[in-house]
Amino acid sequence: MKLDYRKALEKAARQTIMIHRANTLIKMILRTIVRAVGLSHAGMFIYDKKRDEYVLQVSRGSRGFKIPAGFAKIRKDNPLIRCFTDKSIYFPGEIITADGVSGACESFGIGENAPMKKFLEEVKDALFSYQAHACIPGFFRNDLVGVLFLGEKANKKKFHDAELSFLSTLASDIVMALKNAWLIEDLNRQIDANKRLLLQTIASLASSIEAKDKYTIGHTERVAKYALHIAHVLRKSKPIKNWERFVENLNIAALLHDIGKIGIPEHILHKNVRLNKKEKKLVKTHPLVGAAILEHIEAFQEVLLGVKYHHEKYDGNGYPFRLKGRQIPLIASIIALADTFDAMVTDRPYHKGISREQARAEIVRNRGKQFAPCAVDAFLKAYPFRT
Amino acid sequence: MKLDYRKALEKAARQTIMIHRANTLIKMILRTIVRAVGLSHAGMFIYDKKRDEYVLQVSRGSRGFKIPAGFAKIRKDNPLIRCFTDKSIYFPGEIITADGVSGACESFGIGENAPMKKFLEEVKDALFSYQAHACIPGFFRNDLVGVLFLGEKANKKKFHDAELSFLSTLASDIVMALKNAWLIEDLNRQIDANKRLLLQTIASLASSIEAKDKYTIGHTERVAKYALHIAHVLRKSKPIKNWERFVENLNIAALLHDIGKIGIPEHILHKNVRLNKKEKKLVKTHPLVGAAILEHIEAFQEVLLGVKYHHEKYDGNGYPFRLKGRQIPLIASIIALADTFDAMVTDRPYHKGISREQARAEIVRNRGKQFAPCAVDAFLKAYPFRT
Repeated sequence: MKLDYRKALEKAARQTIMIHRANTLIKMILRTIVRAVGLSHAGMFIYDKKRDEYVLQVSRGSRGFKIPAGFAKIRKDNPLIRCFTDKSIYFPGEIITADGVSGACESFGIGENAPMKKFLEEVKDALFSYQAHACIPGFFRNDLVGVLFLGEKANKKKFHDAELSFLSTLASDIVMALKNAWLIEDLNRQIDANKRLLLQTIASLASSIEAKDKYTIGHTERVAKYALHIAHVLRKSKPIKNWERFVENLNIAALLHDIGKIGIPEHILHKNVRLNKKEKKLVKTHPLVGAAILEHIEAFQEVLLGVKYHHEKYDGNGYPFRLKGRQIPLIASIIALADTFDAMVTDRPYHKGISREQARAEIVRNRGKQFAPCAVDAFLKAYPFRT
Repeated sequence: MKLDYRKALEKAARQTIMIHRANTLIKMILRTIVRAVGLSHAGMFIYDKKRDEYVLQVSRGSRGFKIPAGFAKIRKDNPLIRCFTDKSIYFPGEIITADGVSGACESFGIGENAPMKKFLEEVKDALFSYQAHACIPGFFRNDLVGVLFLGEKANKKKFHDAELSFLSTLASDIVMALKNAWLIEDLNRQIDANKRLLLQTIASLASSIEAKDKYTIGHTERVAKYALHIAHVLRKSKPIKNWERFVENLNIAALLHDIGKIGIPEHILHKNVRLNKKEKKLVKTHPLVGAAILEHIEAFQEVLLGVKYHHEKYDGNGYPFRLKGRQIPLIASIIALADTFDAMVTDRPYHKGISREQARAEIVRNRGKQFAPCAVDAFLKAYPFRT
């Protein structure tokens, strides 16, 4: 017996380990099986934990057999599944073939073992619906993870035992690769969920802190929104290192930029007349207080820069360090602009908000003075108001 | 030629996909190679990204060849590595055998191609140090991920070409399994790091909020510490559902239990005389304010319970809902006890702290009144002070 497709399939199975998306993996392996073995089509029922049923994936061969749309999933009590999971049936865990099932059906005498005959008839019908000539279970430990089924061979011949046994090994390889892909998908999902949770937590806590100051409600979330938009535009004309980490940090720093105001008494924050010198000095400590709150968090070193320097000015007239030009980290320059823009257009105790167009003109006027030119240019592209 | 160990090794290679620790994986596969092929020993140099060098793992056969301790890692310019990575050498990417290298050395005439001869002598010496009879590279794309080397065969025979080619396929399987294990290790590390980051962030923000009230500095961190200790002891006598999530949530809820105090003016928090009715009412809103701050965070539904109900009392005399007994979620009962204990033993504007022994007696007296009996019992076991 010749199994000349064996090498191709073994190689394909070997590489499944590098495919981390379960769907891609199944598609790839089914396509390889159809081509290498020369089949009309092949498919696999994959157990879907959420739905607690088996979902079908099919690869059509050149002759393009099409499975009816309603057949895309089957329940756990479907005869094709019960063949392999129901211990009261005599072939659990074995490969089944259409010929074998037909033969078994015919071997019953009239009235003999009626329930089993009925079950086998159901299996036969199910196999027919999918034009499946053989069905191979894929177990992981005792769980039926998938059922691989094979259409007809192009040469119309039957499947040999050796072929089926080879494909059975392949099916358990697929199951392992699937388990692996699911694990990786799951870990990635957890990572995404954790990142979202961190942002949500920071946003909630930051906004609870700003709730102290009724005039700034929503301020941090808006600053974060503006800052992210500016960064996305800026990136188009200026490459930003470690972009993904940068936007994550920018988002967090924007949400936390005023966290240091927690230390400023409410009566100063709420004051609607000009602050005196001492009060001004106190307010100006907030970037440093904010940095002190976050400095123990190792992963927030870049976030820290955004918080600490968001009141520095490009021309060196900012605070607390009077940094100049390129001394100011980009993350801080972007937050500075977003922060000032929001402060200009919203009402505060000490001034009424100006229009977006007026704010825009003010920002243009301060390009290279208060603000970093690259941040202003990106801002103008990001927010092209009519003037 | 007989390759009777082939099946065993193929099966082993196949299962490596389910091994998610790189070290375990290498150990397992080396042991299988040593046993199946019948070798004195086998080893693998694995590339270590952090150190930018290759680290050795060895499996000894029954004859127990021992590699000198100083040979546990080699640099990228080691001749055994350069064989496979240096394009100026004529066999990159090929398998090398001790016999082949010796033969090549001898084939040079006196003074002929001296640098190459010198290099081959170095390779020969290196092979000798590890008693390696054959070296097989494992590439992933163009990167040399590992070098598998084989000791002597038990029957003292040479390696056949077919054997080496089979083991070469195996080496690339190992490399893929390794890459996979590294990826999973890396994802798990990210998940752990993210969890730590979330806790650090919450701890920093929560403590910045409590910094408003100089009398409670360190309070939330201590409450979290007590609560976790109580929970760990409690669990020994009472099963806790979804334990891992529970402690994570308990930790977060304990850190955030007083977050709602953000809304209470400082002059009330700092007051060192008894609060009047109106002030008391305001202070009593803090569990609900805290819950409101967190309620949009879906993953914090259990955390919310801890924050919202940490001033309920077991006998129904707490606030804000006067919940009773089992109506109070366990997470809140534990925090309530930890919170009260810390408040009792530390100085506050309105009272001086009492001793731990006095606090303990007070807690015993309130078992089933203010506090849930199970929490008190666990507390007493967790903190067995001398009385």
